[in-house]
Amino acid sequence: MSESLPASLLTALPDSSVWDATELATRDPGFDARNFGASALVRPRDVEGVAALVRFCAEHGISLVAQGGRTGLAGGAATSAGQVICDLGGLNRIEEIDPFARVAIMQAGVTLGALQEACALHGLDPGIDLAARGSATIGGMVSTNAGGIRAFRNGTMRHRVLGLEAVLPDGRVFCDLTRVLKTSAGYDLKHLFIGAEGTLGIVTRVAVRLDQVVGASATALVGVPDAASAQRIVRHFLGSTSARLTAAEILWRNFAALMQRALNYAPGQLPLDAPCLLVLGLGADRMESARGVLEDGLAAIWEEAGIVDGLVASSDAQAAAMWRLREETQQIEHAHHSPPSFDVSVPGGAMDAYVARIEAGLRKLDAAYAPYVYGHLADGNLHISINCDGPVSHERHTAIEDVLYEGLREAGGSFSAEHGVGLEKRDAYERYADPVKQDLARMIKELIDPGHVMNPGKVVSGK
Amino acid sequence: MSESLPASLLTALPDSSVWDATELATRDPGFDARNFGASALVRPRDVEGVAALVRFCAEHGISLVAQGGRTGLAGGAATSAGQVICDLGGLNRIEEIDPFARVAIMQAGVTLGALQEACALHGLDPGIDLAARGSATIGGMVSTNAGGIRAFRNGTMRHRVLGLEAVLPDGRVFCDLTRVLKTSAGYDLKHLFIGAEGTLGIVTRVAVRLDQVVGASATALVGVPDAASAQRIVRHFLGSTSARLTAAEILWRNFAALMQRALNYAPGQLPLDAPCLLVLGLGADRMESARGVLEDGLAAIWEEAGIVDGLVASSDAQAAAMWRLREETQQIEHAHHSPPSFDVSVPGGAMDAYVARIEAGLRKLDAAYAPYVYGHLADGNLHISINCDGPVSHERHTAIEDVLYEGLREAGGSFSAEHGVGLEKRDAYERYADPVKQDLARMIKELIDPGHVMNPGKVVSGK
Repeated sequence: MSESLPASLLTALPDSSVWDATELATRDPGFDARNFGASALVRPRDVEGVAALVRFCAEHGISLVAQGGRTGLAGGAATSAGQVICDLGGLNRIEEIDPFARVAIMQAGVTLGALQEACALHGLDPGIDLAARGSATIGGMVSTNAGGIRAFRNGTMRHRVLGLEAVLPDGRVFCDLTRVLKTSAGYDLKHLFIGAEGTLGIVTRVAVRLDQVVGASATALVGVPDAASAQRIVRHFLGSTSARLTAAEILWRNFAALMQRALNYAPGQLPLDAPCLLVLGLGADRMESARGVLEDGLAAIWEEAGIVDGLVASSDAQAAAMWRLREETQQIEHAHHSPPSFDVSVPGGAMDAYVARIEAGLRKLDAAYAPYVYGHLADGNLHISINCDGPVSHERHTAIEDVLYEGLREAGGSFSAEHGVGLEKRDAYERYADPVKQDLARMIKELIDPGHVMNPGKVVSGK
Repeated sequence: MSESLPASLLTALPDSSVWDATELATRDPGFDARNFGASALVRPRDVEGVAALVRFCAEHGISLVAQGGRTGLAGGAATSAGQVICDLGGLNRIEEIDPFARVAIMQAGVTLGALQEACALHGLDPGIDLAARGSATIGGMVSTNAGGIRAFRNGTMRHRVLGLEAVLPDGRVFCDLTRVLKTSAGYDLKHLFIGAEGTLGIVTRVAVRLDQVVGASATALVGVPDAASAQRIVRHFLGSTSARLTAAEILWRNFAALMQRALNYAPGQLPLDAPCLLVLGLGADRMESARGVLEDGLAAIWEEAGIVDGLVASSDAQAAAMWRLREETQQIEHAHHSPPSFDVSVPGGAMDAYVARIEAGLRKLDAAYAPYVYGHLADGNLHISINCDGPVSHERHTAIEDVLYEGLREAGGSFSAEHGVGLEKRDAYERYADPVKQDLARMIKELIDPGHVMNPGKVVSGK
């Protein structure tokens, strides 16, 4: 190219917006400072624009990194000089909501929050929720197979996607916009693009399954001796059909204590020094019945579960305060600079033993280590932050990972539950993923993206 | 090989049972007479036995067809001379049921019925059900991505599988026995094997997600003017959290009339000549409340939905009689010899128009054609049989398919909802599946099974 890269892009793609590195430097890169390390950002207006950009990059041997809301926590959208960002923000139209088929069709750059709002007008909901709802995009959530609070009931993004459209590394468009749940019409290749973090294709359009909204939701905060006790409570409510368990979040003592101090939370009678706290959400047709079922259910299981103490929120404000204890996790970053943070799935029956084992293992690395542990009890997804400033040395990071990940796959868990692999977990992927699976993944990456156009160096090992 | 194929197999695989063609000819081939066309059947005892069999076949250039319960309806397990059957019936152990993690780990040859029984002891259920439960195996259900009556709520087999183990065409074992819902740890390649009908690997072990059993389930039979009316009823019950909709099956008049005559069904006051019948299942903690919610809900939606008449079953026997109307579909085969039968997914809002369109299109082919249409209303999966003896000529079959499948993909539906592609829908796959998807599928088959060892000629087009 005789022109600069941004100038060439503008010439080749006149319908797209283009920012150069100077402009990028003045913008907010989102969660990860490395997101805007590229030489240019292109914002196409439609799928044809994305395909034209992909073909341009493929022809010129330039690598392309798709970005949505830039809320990813694993460095999957990080870029470097010479690379081009494909910003999906221009593809932000909700194209259709069908209230009888309970399906929404949208472009990939629509935010979760915008989708939730549009669905709510029909008494529907995409069935998935997470704290970054205001900026996380559906395309990004598909690409990382996002999970969140309600996955234990509704599944992860993979389970919500009915169909998708994606631009392949050769510029062709893979179009499987099925909007029905049942299809056994050959290999279901859309699943290759779900959770692939933009390394096999760029997701441009998605059909998502919707659920009817619950009339009202009651909240409780319950102190329990351990996760097994909390699981007994969850099991009790899952077994009832007279209300719908909508959330079951667990906070271990270190995390709960930090949040309580940071948020100045004072519930009065509730002993926040229980070994674990459980935040429960229960949906029913009306608020009184939701609160009633929650109170009756806790009373029924109180002794069997060994509940220390519990409180059903009597107002929306009290419920919101309980939820802040769980959700305002940026308090960890206020207390520690870039603390090493992890995201694992632990099989249900093994949770207490797992937490005890990692606490002991981390203490061996550093007697001051006392991790903050919290997460989604009912699906086993735990978030873990170390109570120290980061980044720690590569060697120390690896040692912490070994404590957290050792034996996890063999037990049926996962070293990456919902944040993806990106750059941060590439090393762990190579150490902990099944070698046959890694080999197949490399072969498939090479097959579909032989020129390594799309998000090279992320997720899969290889060139 | 100097010996015959069965003798060579027995020598090479001393731990497996081997049947030759003579023995096969004396056995029940299951739903499809072509299932036992092979030269030999091998029944390994474990995954190592399956891997040894695969290596033997790969080395000798023999093609291998995996079989479970032989209940498939699309010819996916059909075999011919020179081929070897890998019978998974020897891998029939349920290895673990974890009531707190709500997961079951089992070998692929376990039947759905056996799994349901074992789970019921813990108050749990695999969340998927179909009429062939007594013989259909979990491995076969994974391989065809089975759906059934409860998929509208719980998803298809793909949504129930947490992890799986499969033997690849080169004899290596792909092992992803994750037993948690949330994992974003690289490409989720287990989805390649789900719905691939044994063309990419042989599934040997599966981890399945379980749900808590509903306390009691009430049944109603409702006459409605059309599918849109039935969908209003479904929407009403889905929006309630005080009970759980467990089934919503729809029967168009031709099918309902056939079944009523064949089963001599006489409900008394119910006008079975309504344009459509809806069989509803509603779960609640106790039978009285299930019946109460069903009665109250029907009363509340009666006028809005234009209900013709309806009856809530007052006894188990009455409920069973209602279910027989929907489930004893072999009555179609009693009325017609091998009637041409189809299995499509139609997007929710388009169902009445679809049925009207195919009825008119079929009449144009033959004025006597009046299809039997019935199926799973809430997920759009319709089963269609033509009221004539079969098999019809290839040309006529293609003409019928064109009436049924034309425009279906573009509208977001599927020409194969839950029966798979197998042999029966190979032609339709080539005519109706997205060409880019077909090309990717061929590339992946070639990548993973370059020697075409596994179930050649099924699902994907190619060599």
